Amino acid sequence: MSPTAPLAAPSTPPLAATRPLLLRALAGEPVDHPPTWLYRQAGRYLPEYRALRERISFGELCADPAAACEATLQPIRRFPLDASIVFSDLLVPFEGLGWTIRYGDHGPEVIDGPRSAQEAAAPARFEPNDAVTAPARTLRLLARELPAHVARIGFAGAPLTLALYLLQGKGAKGFEKARALANADEASFAALLEKLADAVASYLALQVEGGAQVVQLFDSWGGLLPPSQWRRLVLPAARHLVARVRALGVPVCWFLRGSADHARLALETGVDAIAVDWTLDLPEFAATLPDAVTVQGNLDPALLLGAPERAAAAARELRRAMAPRSRFIANLGHGITPEARPESVAALVEALVGAPVAASSAP
Amino acid sequence: MSPTAPLAAPSTPPLAATRPLLLRALAGEPVDHPPTWLYRQAGRYLPEYRALRERISFGELCADPAAACEATLQPIRRFPLDASIVFSDLLVPFEGLGWTIRYGDHGPEVIDGPRSAQEAAAPARFEPNDAVTAPARTLRLLARELPAHVARIGFAGAPLTLALYLLQGKGAKGFEKARALANADEASFAALLEKLADAVASYLALQVEGGAQVVQLFDSWGGLLPPSQWRRLVLPAARHLVARVRALGVPVCWFLRGSADHARLALETGVDAIAVDWTLDLPEFAATLPDAVTVQGNLDPALLLGAPERAAAAARELRRAMAPRSRFIANLGHGITPEARPESVAALVEALVGAPVAASSAP
Repeated sequence: MSPTAPLAAPSTPPLAATRPLLLRALAGEPVDHPPTWLYRQAGRYLPEYRALRERISFGELCADPAAACEATLQPIRRFPLDASIVFSDLLVPFEGLGWTIRYGDHGPEVIDGPRSAQEAAAPARFEPNDAVTAPARTLRLLARELPAHVARIGFAGAPLTLALYLLQGKGAKGFEKARALANADEASFAALLEKLADAVASYLALQVEGGAQVVQLFDSWGGLLPPSQWRRLVLPAARHLVARVRALGVPVCWFLRGSADHARLALETGVDAIAVDWTLDLPEFAATLPDAVTVQGNLDPALLLGAPERAAAAARELRRAMAPRSRFIANLGHGITPEARPESVAALVEALVGAPVAASSAP
Repeated sequence: MSPTAPLAAPSTPPLAATRPLLLRALAGEPVDHPPTWLYRQAGRYLPEYRALRERISFGELCADPAAACEATLQPIRRFPLDASIVFSDLLVPFEGLGWTIRYGDHGPEVIDGPRSAQEAAAPARFEPNDAVTAPARTLRLLARELPAHVARIGFAGAPLTLALYLLQGKGAKGFEKARALANADEASFAALLEKLADAVASYLALQVEGGAQVVQLFDSWGGLLPPSQWRRLVLPAARHLVARVRALGVPVCWFLRGSADHARLALETGVDAIAVDWTLDLPEFAATLPDAVTVQGNLDPALLLGAPERAAAAARELRRAMAPRSRFIANLGHGITPEARPESVAALVEALVGAPVAASSAP
C-alpha cells in the first residue's frame, strides 16, 4: 500500500522550496493560474480507489493512515492538482466525544446518538484516541510523500453541519428531526455548537501538528437555517472555532451549501476564504466582497458526468471571469459523484491549471 | 368515500357570496388575517389520510377524483384553513405526454423515460386522458363540497423541476445525471422546457375549467441551476407558461426552493405571487419587492415536529412581521412531513388565522 507510483507532472516546477500556490493565492500574491483542487478528488469515480475499497471498508480506510495516504495520493498521481485533502470523513470528530459512527451502505450513522439537544450538549472531554488522530497521522505520511508545491489541506465538518447530523442520527433531506430538536431547545443547541466548535478546534490542531497547511471546514447543511437564525445560534460558536484555528497559523476556508446571504454570514466568522456551491454565480458574488477575501469554487459537479470538452469549456469560462481576482481558488461547488468520468475531471483540471487560452494561441 | 363529515369552523363567516380571502390578498384588498394554507396539508401526518391509504395506493388516489376529493377535504375538516389544494402529484402531466409514472415506496419513478434531452424534447401532443383530467374532475367535486370562502387551488410542477425529474428518472439529491444531460445539449433542454411549459399550460387549463381559482407552480428543484443559467434556459419557457395561465383569468403563484436571487428571477416570469422556502428571512426579502407582488411562505416545516406552543409562537412572529403587507399568504417554506404532529399544525394555523394577539388581550 506504499504510494510508490509516479506523481502527475506538476503544474508548477517541483522546486523543493516552492511554496504551494494555494497559500500564495490565499496571501493575495500573484499566481500564474488559480490553485486548483476538487472536493472528493479521491473517491469512487477513480478505478484505483474502487480497487482499494475492495480490500478495505470506508470506515477502515479513514482509520488507517497508510491506506488513507494512498487514497489521498491517487488523484495527485493522475491530475496536476495544486492541493491534496487528507482522506477522512466529516463525522470522525464524534469518535472523540464518545459517540460511535457506523459507516454503512447508505452513508454513516451515529449509533446510540443523543435524543435531545440537551443530552447532546452535555459536557465531554475531547479524547484524542486512534480514530481522531488518524487524519493527523495520514498528514504526516503525506508530508513525506507529496512534493512541496502540493498543499496539504486538513478538514472537519463545521459545527452546525455536525450538530444536525448528530441529532438526526444519519443523513436526511431536510434534517427536519434535527432542526425540530434545535428549535425545541435553542439554548442547548447553542451549547452543543460551542461543544462541537471546541472539539473541532482540538481535532484540527492535531491535523495542523501533523502538517496541514490549510484548513477547510465543510458546512454542507449550513444553508438549512435561515440567515437570522444562523447569525443568532451558529455565528458565535463558528467565530470561536475560526479564531482558534487561525491562531495555529493556518488559513481557514469555510464551505457552505446555501445562498449568497449564508456565505456572507460565514465570512463574518473571520475566515480567510469562503467557498460557495454551484447554485450561485461566483464572479458576480465575488465582485461584492472585499479584496482581502479569498473565494473558492464553484464549478458544477454535474459537468464531470458529461463530455471532457464541455467540462473544460466551463472551467475556462470561470477562470477567465475570475482572472481579475488573485485570491481565487478553483474548485467544484460540491463533491465529485461516483458517476464522474475521470477524463472529464482531467480536462477540467487541465483547463484550470494550464496556460490560459489567450496565451496558447501566440505564434 | 363521500365527504360527509362536518367541515372545520371557518375563519371568516361562511356567507355563500364570500370571496375567498386568498383571492382578496392576491388583489391587494384588506384582509383581517393572512390567508393560510400549508403545502401537503393533506398527507401522511393525518391519521385519517393513513386510513384512506390503507384502502388505496398513492397512484390510485391521484387518479380517483372521489378519493382525491376526500383526501383534499380532510385537512379542511380539521383546521380553519383558507384554501384547499387539489390532491394530486407533480408528475401527473407526464402521463399526457406518453411517459408512465410508477408510484413506488421510494417516491415516483418515470418508466422507460428519455435517455437524452433530445429524446425528451421530441414533439408530442398533450393527451387529455383519464390520468391528466383527474385533478380537474376532483376540482369539480371540490367546488360542490367546499364552502365558498375556501379557495380552490390547482397546481402543477414547474417546467424545470419536471424536466430534471424526467431526465433523472426519479428523485435524487443533486439531480446530477439530469443536469449533465441538460449541459450536454442545452438547445434540446430549452426545447424540452418549452414542450413541458405547453403541456403544463394545457393541464392547468383543464384544472381552471374544473374550478381552480388560483394556480400554484412547484419549482422544488428550481434552485439547482445558478441564476445565470436559469435566466438563459428556463425563463423564456417559464414566461410562456405564466402568460398562458394568467390568460385564463386566474392568479399564479410560483414556489421555488432556492435563494432570494432565484425567487427574484421567478418573479420575472410575470407571476402574481412568489413563494419562498424557509431558508431565507421572508420579512426582509419581501421588503425589497414591489407592493404589487404577493409573497407566500415560509414557516419551517420542522416546527410541526415540535411543541404546539413553539409552532404557534413562530407563526405569530411571522404574522406580526408581515402585517404591513396585505399581499401576504401564510404557508410553510416546504411540505409537511409525515412526522408532523397534527396538534402542532392546528396551533400554527390558529395562530395565523385567529384574532391577532394584541387584539385578544383587550378586556
